[in-house]
Amino acid sequence: MQTISENRCFGGTQGVYSHASDACVCDMTFAVFMPEEATHGPVPVLWFLSGLTCTHENAMVKAGAQAWAAEQGIALVFPDTSPRGEGVPNDDAFDLGQGAGFYVDATQAPWDKHFKMWTYVTDELPALLAENFAIDMDRQAIMGHSMGGHGALTMAMSLPDRFRSVSAFAPICNPTASDWGQKQFSAYLGSEEGTWAAHDATALMLDGGFDGPVLIDTGTDDQFADLLGTQEFAAAFAGCLQEGAVRLQKGYDHSYFFISTFIEEHIAFHAEALYR
Amino acid sequence: MQTISENRCFGGTQGVYSHASDACVCDMTFAVFMPEEATHGPVPVLWFLSGLTCTHENAMVKAGAQAWAAEQGIALVFPDTSPRGEGVPNDDAFDLGQGAGFYVDATQAPWDKHFKMWTYVTDELPALLAENFAIDMDRQAIMGHSMGGHGALTMAMSLPDRFRSVSAFAPICNPTASDWGQKQFSAYLGSEEGTWAAHDATALMLDGGFDGPVLIDTGTDDQFADLLGTQEFAAAFAGCLQEGAVRLQKGYDHSYFFISTFIEEHIAFHAEALYR
Repeated sequence: MQTISENRCFGGTQGVYSHASDACVCDMTFAVFMPEEATHGPVPVLWFLSGLTCTHENAMVKAGAQAWAAEQGIALVFPDTSPRGEGVPNDDAFDLGQGAGFYVDATQAPWDKHFKMWTYVTDELPALLAENFAIDMDRQAIMGHSMGGHGALTMAMSLPDRFRSVSAFAPICNPTASDWGQKQFSAYLGSEEGTWAAHDATALMLDGGFDGPVLIDTGTDDQFADLLGTQEFAAAFAGCLQEGAVRLQKGYDHSYFFISTFIEEHIAFHAEALYR
Repeated sequence: MQTISENRCFGGTQGVYSHASDACVCDMTFAVFMPEEATHGPVPVLWFLSGLTCTHENAMVKAGAQAWAAEQGIALVFPDTSPRGEGVPNDDAFDLGQGAGFYVDATQAPWDKHFKMWTYVTDELPALLAENFAIDMDRQAIMGHSMGGHGALTMAMSLPDRFRSVSAFAPICNPTASDWGQKQFSAYLGSEEGTWAAHDATALMLDGGFDGPVLIDTGTDDQFADLLGTQEFAAAFAGCLQEGAVRLQKGYDHSYFFISTFIEEHIAFHAEALYR
């Protein structure tokens, strides 16, 4: 693991690191915020999975998360959204290939060699963090934005006992019924739609939901509302009597201005679960 | 004036606008955050002048200022740092030309046609704001980062009764004795050093200071410490018994991670002056 940068931030350290990833067969970059409390012992961790076109950097610099993570004594992890670099396949579209890993393990050529973001985020990166940072891996929570909200919800529901809480801003939450999902799952997972349901938050909610609190915030003025599947997810959420809240925030859109406005509440929500 | 974008943010609106500037003889872009209170009547305004290489966008997305401006009911203005575009002169160095206006009115070719950032920020943009936004121009404060800290301090001291308070992160505050200053003043103002003192915060402090509170934060690990002139400014500040504080923040550097950490305190500092 290489240190790319470390900056003092809200009494803690905002770092950026890279490492050779076995899962993705390329160098991967990620960011970690460690609060001051970590100098005294392991702290809980909150994952932030980002959306289409993002790297580890967008949420790190735009979400305003460090202020509240520092207040709560929680570490933050910002993974990249796909493998990258020379030799990694890509597509001209912004919503396929590099920057658009969709948090699945691709099984179809040409994607299947590098695009293993499920394994990377759920297996390889946690092991690396446990080894190198003062993080208590028994106290994890996860959140995400848009495509990253999809990743957060599907991982939380697929890995029982891994995460104590899950939240998302404007998540893609019914991808098997959306152009943000069908296109990518076809490319990465193939045309056999039976394999897709494991990566659809609405399907997973109907299939048992999450054993802990869920918090969703989506803006009423989201410019991608038609692609998110909020209606279907909300119906499944309420139908399953899932603990948590699906909120529609008046006037907000899909941007980081929306995220930064409500991230204090999201981090407080996770802190309550992590310190219970 | 054209609206480039408007996003709901902390209950208010973060907008980006452009207009044809008479002062700079080119199109100029700026950002304004209007808090929710502005829908009921004019609000005070805090200017944020940015540093080398920045546009209107850096502080708007990285400083985390909107959270606290919303809490205090204060508008924020983020001007660009220079004229830009086809036909506007530039230099290969990052610290001269586009992105490096240094908040002066250039008198020397080739800069003198467009590089009028002093007039733009102190005259043209305030008039445009007064006309188009619910801002109470009798309640203004100003802050900045690095080169923008230089701009904020020099404007505050040069325009009595314009600003009620001034603050800066890692300001260039003795440019006439620094490579961040001598080079640019030579280019923009010419070799007659007598014209430079009007744009040196330390000189202006010794020449009367500021009629209001001053707050300076600079990191002890600032990678540009040698270029800032903090020592000279602090000596002038204390020697003149200027109201305010010059603070050195342990372990922090020149980045926006530093700014975001302390911006809550800066905005509270300005709010106290603006609502006095």
